[in-house]
Amino acid sequence: MQKHVDTPDFIEVTQTADISPATYGGRAKCLQRLIRMDLPVPKTVALSFAGVRKIASGQLIEIEGLLDLIGDTLVSVRQSRQVSDWGGPGAVLNIGMNAARHAAMSNTIGHAAADALFRRFIQCYAVEVAHLDPEMFADATASVADLRDAYEAETDEPFPDDPARQLTDVLAAMARTWESTSARLLREARGAPKDAGLGLVVQEMALGLGAPESGAGVIQFIDGTTGQAQVTGRYRSQAQGRDALKEGVGSLFLTKDPRGASLEQHCPEIFAELLDMGVACRTRLREEMQIEFTIDDGELRVLDAVRVPRTSRANVRTAVALAEDGVIDRNEAILRVQPNALIDLLHRQVDETAPREVCLSGIAASPGAATGRIVFTAAAALAAEAREEATILVRRETKPDDIRGMHAAVGVLTERGGMTSHAAVIARGIGLPCVVGATGLRINRREKTIVVDDGQVIKEGDLITIDGSRGEIIAGEAALLEPALDEAFQTLLSWADEARDIGVRANADTLADARTARDFRAEGIGLCRTEHMFFDEGRMKVMREMIFADTPEDRSAVLERLLPMQRADFVALFELMRGQPVCVRLLDPPLHEFLPDGTEGLRELAQVLNVPLAKATRRVEALTEFNPMLGMRGVRLGIKVPEIYEIQARAIFEAAVIAGETGVAPVPEVMIPLVSAKREVELVKSRVDAVAAAVRNESGQDFSYRLGVMVETPRACLRADEIAQHSEFLSFGTNDLTQMTYGLSRDDAGRFMNDYVQEGVYPEDPFHRLDLDGVGELLMIAAERGKDAKRNVTLAICGEHAGDPEAIAFCRRFGFDYVSCSPFRVPVARLAAAHQAITGGNGT
Amino acid sequence: MQKHVDTPDFIEVTQTADISPATYGGRAKCLQRLIRMDLPVPKTVALSFAGVRKIASGQLIEIEGLLDLIGDTLVSVRQSRQVSDWGGPGAVLNIGMNAARHAAMSNTIGHAAADALFRRFIQCYAVEVAHLDPEMFADATASVADLRDAYEAETDEPFPDDPARQLTDVLAAMARTWESTSARLLREARGAPKDAGLGLVVQEMALGLGAPESGAGVIQFIDGTTGQAQVTGRYRSQAQGRDALKEGVGSLFLTKDPRGASLEQHCPEIFAELLDMGVACRTRLREEMQIEFTIDDGELRVLDAVRVPRTSRANVRTAVALAEDGVIDRNEAILRVQPNALIDLLHRQVDETAPREVCLSGIAASPGAATGRIVFTAAAALAAEAREEATILVRRETKPDDIRGMHAAVGVLTERGGMTSHAAVIARGIGLPCVVGATGLRINRREKTIVVDDGQVIKEGDLITIDGSRGEIIAGEAALLEPALDEAFQTLLSWADEARDIGVRANADTLADARTARDFRAEGIGLCRTEHMFFDEGRMKVMREMIFADTPEDRSAVLERLLPMQRADFVALFELMRGQPVCVRLLDPPLHEFLPDGTEGLRELAQVLNVPLAKATRRVEALTEFNPMLGMRGVRLGIKVPEIYEIQARAIFEAAVIAGETGVAPVPEVMIPLVSAKREVELVKSRVDAVAAAVRNESGQDFSYRLGVMVETPRACLRADEIAQHSEFLSFGTNDLTQMTYGLSRDDAGRFMNDYVQEGVYPEDPFHRLDLDGVGELLMIAAERGKDAKRNVTLAICGEHAGDPEAIAFCRRFGFDYVSCSPFRVPVARLAAAHQAITGGNGT
Repeated sequence: MQKHVDTPDFIEVTQTADISPATYGGRAKCLQRLIRMDLPVPKTVALSFAGVRKIASGQLIEIEGLLDLIGDTLVSVRQSRQVSDWGGPGAVLNIGMNAARHAAMSNTIGHAAADALFRRFIQCYAVEVAHLDPEMFADATASVADLRDAYEAETDEPFPDDPARQLTDVLAAMARTWESTSARLLREARGAPKDAGLGLVVQEMALGLGAPESGAGVIQFIDGTTGQAQVTGRYRSQAQGRDALKEGVGSLFLTKDPRGASLEQHCPEIFAELLDMGVACRTRLREEMQIEFTIDDGELRVLDAVRVPRTSRANVRTAVALAEDGVIDRNEAILRVQPNALIDLLHRQVDETAPREVCLSGIAASPGAATGRIVFTAAAALAAEAREEATILVRRETKPDDIRGMHAAVGVLTERGGMTSHAAVIARGIGLPCVVGATGLRINRREKTIVVDDGQVIKEGDLITIDGSRGEIIAGEAALLEPALDEAFQTLLSWADEARDIGVRANADTLADARTARDFRAEGIGLCRTEHMFFDEGRMKVMREMIFADTPEDRSAVLERLLPMQRADFVALFELMRGQPVCVRLLDPPLHEFLPDGTEGLRELAQVLNVPLAKATRRVEALTEFNPMLGMRGVRLGIKVPEIYEIQARAIFEAAVIAGETGVAPVPEVMIPLVSAKREVELVKSRVDAVAAAVRNESGQDFSYRLGVMVETPRACLRADEIAQHSEFLSFGTNDLTQMTYGLSRDDAGRFMNDYVQEGVYPEDPFHRLDLDGVGELLMIAAERGKDAKRNVTLAICGEHAGDPEAIAFCRRFGFDYVSCSPFRVPVARLAAAHQAITGGNGT
Repeated sequence: MQKHVDTPDFIEVTQTADISPATYGGRAKCLQRLIRMDLPVPKTVALSFAGVRKIASGQLIEIEGLLDLIGDTLVSVRQSRQVSDWGGPGAVLNIGMNAARHAAMSNTIGHAAADALFRRFIQCYAVEVAHLDPEMFADATASVADLRDAYEAETDEPFPDDPARQLTDVLAAMARTWESTSARLLREARGAPKDAGLGLVVQEMALGLGAPESGAGVIQFIDGTTGQAQVTGRYRSQAQGRDALKEGVGSLFLTKDPRGASLEQHCPEIFAELLDMGVACRTRLREEMQIEFTIDDGELRVLDAVRVPRTSRANVRTAVALAEDGVIDRNEAILRVQPNALIDLLHRQVDETAPREVCLSGIAASPGAATGRIVFTAAAALAAEAREEATILVRRETKPDDIRGMHAAVGVLTERGGMTSHAAVIARGIGLPCVVGATGLRINRREKTIVVDDGQVIKEGDLITIDGSRGEIIAGEAALLEPALDEAFQTLLSWADEARDIGVRANADTLADARTARDFRAEGIGLCRTEHMFFDEGRMKVMREMIFADTPEDRSAVLERLLPMQRADFVALFELMRGQPVCVRLLDPPLHEFLPDGTEGLRELAQVLNVPLAKATRRVEALTEFNPMLGMRGVRLGIKVPEIYEIQARAIFEAAVIAGETGVAPVPEVMIPLVSAKREVELVKSRVDAVAAAVRNESGQDFSYRLGVMVETPRACLRADEIAQHSEFLSFGTNDLTQMTYGLSRDDAGRFMNDYVQEGVYPEDPFHRLDLDGVGELLMIAAERGKDAKRNVTLAICGEHAGDPEAIAFCRRFGFDYVSCSPFRVPVARLAAAHQAITGGNGT
């Protein structure tokens, strides 16, 4: 942070004073803006960060000079931070109150009002400055004398009478609070730098007490939840600060309301004045503001104005409305919405304003909320789906077998796992609310119950609500808000699409995924993993027969039976995507993933395939690998068992012919996984090209396709120049690339990743956030070499990281053509890309 | 290859003719050298590669001109290749023989001699030129007429009489033979380029027949097996070419010999002349030559001279002798011995001259030969060792459990595996003859027999001889040659040490390894893997208790018991290495390697540790990993369970104190494995430094140590600058680095590596030969960044590749300080490094 050595300790806030948020904090600056708009702001003095730092370290500031500036009056002190969510001390009102002034004010505003002012000050001072027990000063019936006696009894000192002493103490207490360890940790966790400063604002009190009409209120012009235009707030006579918002009787509505009295009726001129101020703030401050006002002796005073606190959806609607009204431009509207905030809009959410009975917490692994009956197996979830019953699938951890059950459920809860566990990754991919690592949970499979740490037992069939955005499980049903894919959302994203300069595609393995991708306006499928297509029961059997075939001819014969199924998959996909590119990754996993383990599974396998158990066992054993991640998978399988890729290529090309006959010509892309040497690409390319030629001959139809490489090994990055020569695109699979760059298996890293991140060994889980230093350098090397070797080679990333703003910024910087992320990240990626384009890629 | 477009088709070989081995082949050049030495070489014409190519493609050369040059005489034609082991056609003698000349010569040298010349020519022509069945012309009693008739009967043509026609046919046949596919494949397999040329030499015949003394012989001045100075060869009267070397009666010894007549006695002047020629050749040609001579009409003629064919050990002795006699300089002596050829000298070898009954072949995985009784278990090998019986351990494949058994055996034979299998790697490391992948073998464990494909059965206890240099198994005993670590070997290597400019250390895990390393004059231990120290039974139990300890305190308490054992290991090692550096790698493997698998193993474990079976099972399951290679091992384990590294560091430092008290101060180096982030190094370094400080305090003794990193992940290479800041050395573990760069598990790659290499997907198995393009680039990046960050950081490689000349050349180029290879590679590495230094690093 820039040092302002010349900043004075304090300064009166005037139209011309030299005040910036970086030296005096946001509140001081905002008050100056209100003053420049000629709004009736009471006299205000701002203490700079430097001044407050002095106070905190015990040095003196010229308190007499400050008092001279503000005049002989009661004052309030409020904090003025640089960023509003960095925490900080609460406000102290009515400083300067003492016996003499109490007597004087009893004459002007009446004894009761003067008493109220004094009581409030003593309570506040006792708690905030002297750190006494709030309970002791909470009694509303206590007199001023009672409170002063209580103060003296606790501190062995009389309550201070001297206004200068009072103000000095308040400022010192607030300054020290800011420097306390707990406050520091809190704000640093929210991104504040180590030397974040605090400003303070000393303001002449507008009392809100006494006659004629006096009181305080808060007004804003939109609904903070929905963002819709609507005057919102309350006013209370004979009140100070935000008293009007407190529960209980006595507050007025602002606009005319059938439920009761309103300020509009009670003080129509003042109300009209407030409306004018709202319009002025919106136009001049270019934001929806919440105004804190006081009516003091019949006069309207504006004490403060802050940005209206709002939900993500209200923020989107406000940004769009401001831009549509010409108050801000479209780019600014785009920048006002944080990409990750869109996630809240894509899913159902638990209503934050409703009460929630949380019975269990875990890791918030996939956002959104859902209510359903708990089941313990994928089969039960599927059965319930057939009965149109919503279920939450509860598992110790999920495996590929559970994927269909996850699709059938409305939410997933697991005892184990982290952000990158199987359950978490799949759930985010399909937009399913998910909580993982709920370690306070024991599953009793025999009795079909969950036992929670506090002893509560939840039985199969019981209703629970899962909050994947907060990582919480709520017993029973909870009030849910529907997703907000409304007009404002669509408008904002269409503006983002105009602004951005990098493509966004989706990773989609199923038709359902692809539909979501299309609904979120992805520009094609960037990664279609074909293996999931084989986990279907009928196909699994064919895969197993293929594995047990003894000759290439037998293998081909078996695979022929898969052809029509695969072809149908691709026809549907191509038709759905209507001429947008669909990038199909050839089979990637090692063959043993298609085989059972355990004695029972082997016996079944032998029976189904009609082979001796010994043969089945031997084959399964022979395919077992020490390190499957680094074994015979991807292109290695494609080269060793060429029939598989050939049948897949045929299915893709025949589907292209069929889909092209009935609609828009599809744009199939064929992607080779796990490449580490140029020759691998040459071999597969020549076979795939041969299949394409054959299909063209047989069908008499032409079609185009592109062949490229999934870059997942460090070596492929280093040799990207050679590889690009045979590839029309290079798409980086950052999941595997991260595993290999670190020498770290994602499946096994869970055991120490938390420790590692907590001890700062890794600044972040590299599977969660792209490691720019290591993996990023390999991407950079590969991008440069690929482009050097072939200027028009398409560059993309399709790993889990692809939807992250930081990764997108990186991709833009190195000339990537598109990112491909899970369908539910597509809106986030579109907006993040727009941010990058507008800000010049310096992140958001 | 350079093209010589101006080279004539043929040229007479004179002192001044423009002849180079690259245009006319080595023989033509050698003959010119002999002529320049004024040796009595018959008139010779050399055909160039270009000329022979013309002939092969059917074009004409000026054969009349050639005949004019050579004169009206019988001639021989011999090939003249560029490199002697590239194969090629055999010699044809006596060309130009026909009826007329037969008649004439019958008058000069007698009828019998003329007959012999003619018969020999017809036989040779029929076989080499007309490609007739050699059997038909083999009858020694057949007359000239019989042979001509046989020729005519087979070819329907009369035997050609015209000398020009005869010569043309012989040249054409020899030229075409060179171009045949089989000859081409053979020489390309030996490294010949696709366009390797053949020269031919046409030489006036020195007949060796007739009176007075005529005959032919071969003489050399060293023994081809041992290299010792000794006149060797034979002479036969009335003979041509190399007839004297044929079995049977009639040949003379060269020197006086109690077994029979000698040339020395028979023709003392000629013998003296030959000795002079030997001295002249050795001095002028700077090599030990084998001279082919003929005595023609009482006159000595030299037909040819070739480098004496010799074993590796004879080559070493010769090179050293030539240098010691000042014929060549030491650097040339060094360059005359191929580094890999030293391997033959380090181990016993099967005597190549003795008959061998090969019953089984496999991959030559570790060189050397041994005879022993076969056993099928490591335990049996250990038991036999106790009885001082030599055994060959036969296993399907070996595992870490077998290592002690391998140490006890004299050789290892496995059914499975390749050059980088466990058995192969361990065997090479400890210098044990080993054959792997002997697929023609079935092991019947119940009956304790091996059944070979041909039906032969070998029983436990039967004697076999294993030839790990050739990958062969010989039934019964075979004659073995002892290793040749003689004076010449030591002299050559001491010269190499003076020449080289990169250090050579050894990887050594045991005292035995370290002893070998010291005997081979390694400059310290570059990698001491401590895990093997824990596989000892007593220690294994402690490791298991440590794994089952529930708190860090319990863990430390258990590990305390390992301390004295580890300390003793290091004291012995430090004392043995006498002040040379010893680089100890902290524990690397994942903990589950210390746990049993299988029900029985688990039950035993539970019993020994006195824990419930369920707990044992749970703990083992919890430690199981999907990809152990990428799991919780190396520094990750060191950070998660810090007690392990602390106890190891303490053992090292306490040992340093003890060893320092009694002898030379040791130089311990502590190496952190599997680093991928700087912070890992910082954390371990601060703990290790703390242990060192504690040991210094407790002992009151100072000692020095160096702490560094084993660079095995691509990320550590990329971040070498940061990592070097906390490291005194970076030692590259190219095994793991290769695995991660390719995304390829060495343990699993065997299934497809052969196919991959055969199809040229990878030019070589990257675990066998360093991948300069990918892994090499990472090494290069890391070396540069490491040096940039810390100029004096030590760079080394300690993977399996470290002993390879190519890897050494690479290391020199990038400023590495030393390579560390298995002890038995140390001499190879020392010599290879010298080659690099002398040739400027262009490889050998």
